[in-house]
Amino acid sequence: MHTFDTHETFDGDKLHEECGVFGIIGAADAAAATALGLHALQHRGQEAVGIVSFDGAEFFNRRGIGHVADNFSTGESIAELPGTMAAGHVRYSTTGGSGLRNVQPLYAELASGGFAVAHNGNISNAGALRSELVEKGAIFQSTSDTEVIIHLVATSRYPTMLDKITDALRLVEGAYALVIMTPRGMAACRDPLGIRPLVMGQLGDATIFASETVALDVVGAEFVREVEPGELVEVDFDGTVRSHRPFGNPSPRPCIFEHVYFSRPDSYFGGHSVYESRKQIGVELARENHCDADYVIPVPDSGTPAAIGYSQQSGIPFELGIIRSHYVGRTFIQPSDGARHASVKRKHNANRSLVEGKRIVLIDDSIVRGTTSLKIVQMMRDAGAKEVHFRVASPPTGHGCYYGVDTPERSKLLAGRMDVDAMCEYIQADSLAFVSIDGLYRAVGLKGRNTACPQYCDACFTGDYPTPLTDLAARQAQSAQLSLPVGKE
Amino acid sequence: MHTFDTHETFDGDKLHEECGVFGIIGAADAAAATALGLHALQHRGQEAVGIVSFDGAEFFNRRGIGHVADNFSTGESIAELPGTMAAGHVRYSTTGGSGLRNVQPLYAELASGGFAVAHNGNISNAGALRSELVEKGAIFQSTSDTEVIIHLVATSRYPTMLDKITDALRLVEGAYALVIMTPRGMAACRDPLGIRPLVMGQLGDATIFASETVALDVVGAEFVREVEPGELVEVDFDGTVRSHRPFGNPSPRPCIFEHVYFSRPDSYFGGHSVYESRKQIGVELARENHCDADYVIPVPDSGTPAAIGYSQQSGIPFELGIIRSHYVGRTFIQPSDGARHASVKRKHNANRSLVEGKRIVLIDDSIVRGTTSLKIVQMMRDAGAKEVHFRVASPPTGHGCYYGVDTPERSKLLAGRMDVDAMCEYIQADSLAFVSIDGLYRAVGLKGRNTACPQYCDACFTGDYPTPLTDLAARQAQSAQLSLPVGKE
Amino acid sequence: MHTFDTHETFDGDKLHEECGVFGIIGAADAAAATALGLHALQHRGQEAVGIVSFDGAEFFNRRGIGHVADNFSTGESIAELPGTMAAGHVRYSTTGGSGLRNVQPLYAELASGGFAVAHNGNISNAGALRSELVEKGAIFQSTSDTEVIIHLVATSRYPTMLDKITDALRLVEGAYALVIMTPRGMAACRDPLGIRPLVMGQLGDATIFASETVALDVVGAEFVREVEPGELVEVDFDGTVRSHRPFGNPSPRPCIFEHVYFSRPDSYFGGHSVYESRKQIGVELARENHCDADYVIPVPDSGTPAAIGYSQQSGIPFELGIIRSHYVGRTFIQPSDGARHASVKRKHNANRSLVEGKRIVLIDDSIVRGTTSLKIVQMMRDAGAKEVHFRVASPPTGHGCYYGVDTPERSKLLAGRMDVDAMCEYIQADSLAFVSIDGLYRAVGLKGRNTACPQYCDACFTGDYPTPLTDLAARQAQSAQLSLPVGKE
Amino acid sequence: MHTFDTHETFDGDKLHEECGVFGIIGAADAAAATALGLHALQHRGQEAVGIVSFDGAEFFNRRGIGHVADNFSTGESIAELPGTMAAGHVRYSTTGGSGLRNVQPLYAELASGGFAVAHNGNISNAGALRSELVEKGAIFQSTSDTEVIIHLVATSRYPTMLDKITDALRLVEGAYALVIMTPRGMAACRDPLGIRPLVMGQLGDATIFASETVALDVVGAEFVREVEPGELVEVDFDGTVRSHRPFGNPSPRPCIFEHVYFSRPDSYFGGHSVYESRKQIGVELARENHCDADYVIPVPDSGTPAAIGYSQQSGIPFELGIIRSHYVGRTFIQPSDGARHASVKRKHNANRSLVEGKRIVLIDDSIVRGTTSLKIVQMMRDAGAKEVHFRVASPPTGHGCYYGVDTPERSKLLAGRMDVDAMCEYIQADSLAFVSIDGLYRAVGLKGRNTACPQYCDACFTGDYPTPLTDLAARQAQSAQLSLPVGKE
Repeated sequence: MHTFDTHETFDGDKLHEECGVFGIIGAADAAAATALGLHALQHRGQEAVGIVSFDGAEFFNRRGIGHVADNFSTGESIAELPGTMAAGHVRYSTTGGSGLRNVQPLYAELASGGFAVAHNGNISNAGALRSELVEKGAIFQSTSDTEVIIHLVATSRYPTMLDKITDALRLVEGAYALVIMTPRGMAACRDPLGIRPLVMGQLGDATIFASETVALDVVGAEFVREVEPGELVEVDFDGTVRSHRPFGNPSPRPCIFEHVYFSRPDSYFGGHSVYESRKQIGVELARENHCDADYVIPVPDSGTPAAIGYSQQSGIPFELGIIRSHYVGRTFIQPSDGARHASVKRKHNANRSLVEGKRIVLIDDSIVRGTTSLKIVQMMRDAGAKEVHFRVASPPTGHGCYYGVDTPERSKLLAGRMDVDAMCEYIQADSLAFVSIDGLYRAVGLKGRNTACPQYCDACFTGDYPTPLTDLAARQAQSAQLSLPVGKE
Repeated sequence: MHTFDTHETFDGDKLHEECGVFGIIGAADAAAATALGLHALQHRGQEAVGIVSFDGAEFFNRRGIGHVADNFSTGESIAELPGTMAAGHVRYSTTGGSGLRNVQPLYAELASGGFAVAHNGNISNAGALRSELVEKGAIFQSTSDTEVIIHLVATSRYPTMLDKITDALRLVEGAYALVIMTPRGMAACRDPLGIRPLVMGQLGDATIFASETVALDVVGAEFVREVEPGELVEVDFDGTVRSHRPFGNPSPRPCIFEHVYFSRPDSYFGGHSVYESRKQIGVELARENHCDADYVIPVPDSGTPAAIGYSQQSGIPFELGIIRSHYVGRTFIQPSDGARHASVKRKHNANRSLVEGKRIVLIDDSIVRGTTSLKIVQMMRDAGAKEVHFRVASPPTGHGCYYGVDTPERSKLLAGRMDVDAMCEYIQADSLAFVSIDGLYRAVGLKGRNTACPQYCDACFTGDYPTPLTDLAARQAQSAQLSLPVGKE
Repeated sequence: MHTFDTHETFDGDKLHEECGVFGIIGAADAAAATALGLHALQHRGQEAVGIVSFDGAEFFNRRGIGHVADNFSTGESIAELPGTMAAGHVRYSTTGGSGLRNVQPLYAELASGGFAVAHNGNISNAGALRSELVEKGAIFQSTSDTEVIIHLVATSRYPTMLDKITDALRLVEGAYALVIMTPRGMAACRDPLGIRPLVMGQLGDATIFASETVALDVVGAEFVREVEPGELVEVDFDGTVRSHRPFGNPSPRPCIFEHVYFSRPDSYFGGHSVYESRKQIGVELARENHCDADYVIPVPDSGTPAAIGYSQQSGIPFELGIIRSHYVGRTFIQPSDGARHASVKRKHNANRSLVEGKRIVLIDDSIVRGTTSLKIVQMMRDAGAKEVHFRVASPPTGHGCYYGVDTPERSKLLAGRMDVDAMCEYIQADSLAFVSIDGLYRAVGLKGRNTACPQYCDACFTGDYPTPLTDLAARQAQSAQLSLPVGKE
Repeated sequence: MHTFDTHETFDGDKLHEECGVFGIIGAADAAAATALGLHALQHRGQEAVGIVSFDGAEFFNRRGIGHVADNFSTGESIAELPGTMAAGHVRYSTTGGSGLRNVQPLYAELASGGFAVAHNGNISNAGALRSELVEKGAIFQSTSDTEVIIHLVATSRYPTMLDKITDALRLVEGAYALVIMTPRGMAACRDPLGIRPLVMGQLGDATIFASETVALDVVGAEFVREVEPGELVEVDFDGTVRSHRPFGNPSPRPCIFEHVYFSRPDSYFGGHSVYESRKQIGVELARENHCDADYVIPVPDSGTPAAIGYSQQSGIPFELGIIRSHYVGRTFIQPSDGARHASVKRKHNANRSLVEGKRIVLIDDSIVRGTTSLKIVQMMRDAGAKEVHFRVASPPTGHGCYYGVDTPERSKLLAGRMDVDAMCEYIQADSLAFVSIDGLYRAVGLKGRNTACPQYCDACFTGDYPTPLTDLAARQAQSAQLSLPVGKE
């Protein structure tokens, strides 16, 4: 029905963090705290959720499709997960399909006892490692890259669990923030570059690991520190915490997009308030790209902090020119395109009485495919806006991410296909500007990007990938050979 | 688990509109448009939803518990509802219990053919009318007050449907905005005082009725005019529109709380943009109750427009000091207290880095029980705020509503129990102020309240009820006699 | 997939009792007893089930689609139905469609208080009565003929409930066995001819009414007597039982098909053991229609008692030549043809080692459409039977039933279309014989059918209907006029 | 509610076959045929069902809890399983818990491609093998003993799939009838003693394997032969069938209880009609243990064939003295005791009019715990039987089975605790007799049991187990050491 298609989703056109992790050891209500913590991390993955707990003797597991609240809000669901140690995971189902068997934490019975792991990130040589393991007789129960880690641990010939895990992770390439449970306690680990975030907190005698500080806030815990890039932290049931550095000390490259969009504004990341970073990006944007207008209008809700910064720096009033319906989640992500469209449509509406006859500056956090930017501009014009200027609180996103973020292929990224002028024409704005890469680094408290040794992973903006991409290279090599004759089996 | 109870819901402590209605006649995709329109009215009732359609020969009906998107987002569900005329209803299940049989539109086979009705409002003498009807042999299938209207129509001895409906509504007292379907076409009607809203729109040849203009926007329709208080509009399948005024011309008294909270900010009500009214209330608040502070902080999201107005008038910067999770709806209403608490907890978080050490003005739209205001103030203090001043974008809510709005009994309304100083002490703010009743009337474009003949229904603020309350009076009389001996049967 | 269609259902080709009723007053666990009693009556209706209970103050209701065990086997389900009085109903959804709103007991709030009714039978002037009631403003909530009774009671101008019920039933024509609950107690009533069965039992101080005696057995109750044709029995909460005869004393005509197929073999009906009646029909069959053969083989399970009788009378050994799967119910009835075929296929298998090379006599209880008789004969021949003789334990079924039994229209009844020789040819048996109508009457202890004043309703065999059939006559008149021009509205 | 507990389940007190398997290769509708075949094997496992199919490129899998009809009766469910090869499994969840991950066929991606296996039987050294595999790094996804076979195949160092399977099965001890699928075709294998049954059939060009011949009948296939004990049959997509004998030629010992109870009476097993075997057991019983009585009455339905035989041999009339409700399955098995009682109660009823004042011989197939035999005897006496003689169509069951049959531990088997006189007293019969072990062997066509080299596995009667029981021995050794001090880890 053509008439009703006007306001397509805006948030479907975003990069998406694939996962959030949470673990707690030493708490009477470990599973309840985990459910609450995962709820605070829901924006990092809306597709599926799982919690594994350990009661000193046995592991317990509960998994479900959908939101945390759909699966873990009842007392009955929590009662299935007894014990003082628990870990959980929310996921957006890009890698590995959407079946229940891929829902994390993954669990296996090893010779050393139960082993559970929750993983945020992506192992960029998982395919190669998997092939080797299957060749030796390993049987995989999921299609998740994370299961590779379990098999590597299971077949490691080192004697202690710490050594087995280290042995396994040395073979692994890519990005990972892991929370691991064994009958001896909990371990948390961040890849050598610290691409994905992981923080540590304290709640009474309990130790907590989580993807973001908001998960600590929601359970009433104190933020202690980030797990360092390349650090492996062990916590046992006495509460003893041991830190290991099995990978030496490479320079960290955490993901700068956590500041732009992934993390919640009330989280701290890399020592900075995400809300402040975003407001500051707005300030940088206003400095770099001034614009005469009547109103600064955020694309809700992710553009709001930058719009406030832009308004304060420019002196142009901040107004709500787009009203967002509350009856859809922040992203309402679903894995298939069909479902995505059915559920995220009807999300925003123009505040016509405000916008009519006015010159406006729209502030959004990023442009991915550009399709929704185009629709927003159209919606503003349909509501009578005289001029529509578009300002983006990140540099052009021209490159895919292979570290646990769902990105379209490069050919579908607007900035992968055209320059800023062409993009402006495509979205039909009166003007378009992005914050510069140095402006972005300044907004997070640095002097600018250190080209020789960048302080963050910014590959989606720059194409500068900090690790090898083994599986990608193999796929590209295979595509290149598709025209050759296929040999006999 | 005591630790995790800190952030109770804020929106559970609101007044709640009970219903939204939508009807369309003359459209190829009547049911699809109705589903979309109801989705835009979702904030008016989250408990249940129903749509009835008519294909020229038969009526079709589909009802469900939960949100519109849960029940009417698939092609299959819409395909069950063929025809060019459809009407739908979203409800919050206060009156009449939460069973599926109470979900509207109600439908009955009368001697004249099928009859469907969707009702927003509350009939304040429904109990008395129902007793009379049952005495005569009528059998009710729901506990809804709306069914009284159907039985009155069914037993009316007037010959035409228009006369039957008029005959029925003359016996009815209270507030109602009705959308009615018969095999002859659609009728829409608003009570003589126009307490509940109802607007009329045009989409090609189709005529639409809806509780708010946003429902017209979402389907791409033009706003034509409000259905007038006391007007009954008939539309037949030729598209002919006839207006009737069966109740004379009493002075209208529409509900002023639609401006304060019920309507979406992008709706128009009584000729005013709701967003502008709310911002203007913020301006009036700032004029009436200035306050020295570092930041103006809205209680999200209903306090945001007034906070922007307050900030612009006072010059104090607008900042997001409370971050709201997107994984709960605007109100997350559920009918039982237990469910309410389980699902709305974990909704907001302090933006600690911003608030710490600062003097803040919090702006909320209203205070009902006061329990959540107290929790917000505590949350701000826990985050390090130096001073917390509370400003409310409506007068004190001291009286119950009997016109289709869910209100706690007077003894549970904070303003029903104490004066402003006591309220300030209760919520532990450094200062507390409400906009005045005249300030509220000024914000919606009047010179102030006309005490002799108030322009709006403001009974929740003033206790000045514009209609008799027959059932309430009967209940009060009954309570008064409970100590008397009960007679023989 | 053609190959797999060989063994179609046999039981789909049966006449089906539409309902079973059960009521109990004066028992601590009224609802639990009712569930158990209904389970014993499950063969009388597999489509839907409902129970209403009364706790002295309020009525409670629970209904479901499917079997008793699917809906009432848990403690939770029974706990929803408190009180010492309860009534229940199982139904096969012929009349009135299969929606949940048609599931009985029906319940209404009358001016005199709650009123619940469970009905086995069919009101043959329900359509005419309904039209009159709707004309006066009555609103029906179901499409069930039973609801007519409630509206007649609701609008009766007699003062007492007994008089209201009598007043209502005097207008009603057809077959009914009713169990009624009001706040004063329970009433049970059987139509003047007693077409449908209803028995009365005693369990401690509790009084029970049920369609068959097996329902008394299962709860451990004593059989007291049948409710007499035309009798209305009232039981109050003191246990006082009052019998009324409001319809005079017409000669009874209970349904003889209860002996043939409907009742369970372990029930008593009209003073006779149903098992004995069926065995005796087999004896009469053997006397009337001898046959040289090696084995007597029942079509399981309904042909088994007659086959035992046939074997004992004829001296031919009884053997199991058809093995029935236990993973389908006795009839596996579903309302739509599609569902019926999907679920009842794959039900029987030939016992090839037994049948091969042998002359067999197949005994079945009745032939309805004949389609399955044909399939059974084919199955026996495919298994190698040398001769297949078919003997039927009832006379040819050539007429429809309008008293609460699901029968195909006459044109689809094999005996409505052809004589016995043609039927034999159709089912491809070597010989075919039916018990005579007098043989059937002899088997139930009479000397034969009293033609002047038949002792049973045997309309399905004889076309001799004991009551007027008002709605049928109206439909036939209407069909006859379909070629006339349709007048203006 | 005490009153209603009289008629406990009878069938809950049986030995239960744990599984049925079915496989087909070369059929257009492989999955549909498999569903139908499994339905015919439903009596071998009611707890869960699964089907895996292969379409030449990919494997497809669908599993569910409950009956075949509940999970595979719709076209949609079958459409999920494309391809010309499919295998399925029904199970009763004794070993390995009732989770969905234990539902067979199990499936794994091996280095050689997909591998699916359906298993009937029990591997009596699965625990020992599993420990060894886990020690080497294998990760199990189920708790099923069957998964051991997959891991043994996955880690076998032989080059061809045939050799890998043979290599794996040589390490395995116990009973198994396997249907295996790989991308090359289907394999079927029976353990060296042929303890569990497996037959082979032909349907056009398709080859079928199934636990019983009834599954061939239902799909219209021809019975070809039994898979021989110790035989491994390979079928490829050309239809080529290859037979291998990797285990030499030990003397077979198939399970004699298949004749007594497990197989359907219309199946053939070991060259004999099961119905004939059972009738013949009745004949032997009558010869060995005559009894003066009025009626022979089967405990339905499993006692019926033996009762017919007993009646024919003794001349005492066969009558239905116990009527069985059709609204419970043959066994209504559920894994927990609680569920079992809730659902199987209310299953049988005495045919009082027949039994009253009579001397009866009850025929049942076996006595396990004896609890239900006691209840049946009581029920007959309550119905007025003058004498109740109990005859059992198998020898006393005094020993547990470890080959895939659910048996209570020996201390709960009535014949494990007492002699026949004590058993008679326990069940309160007037007399009790069992067929002798030689009588049983005679009934299946032999001269008697060959003590030196028994022709069947009859361990449940004799305690003579034909294989080692490694895991059992280990558990017993462990129990014996429980009083010793536990060493350090």
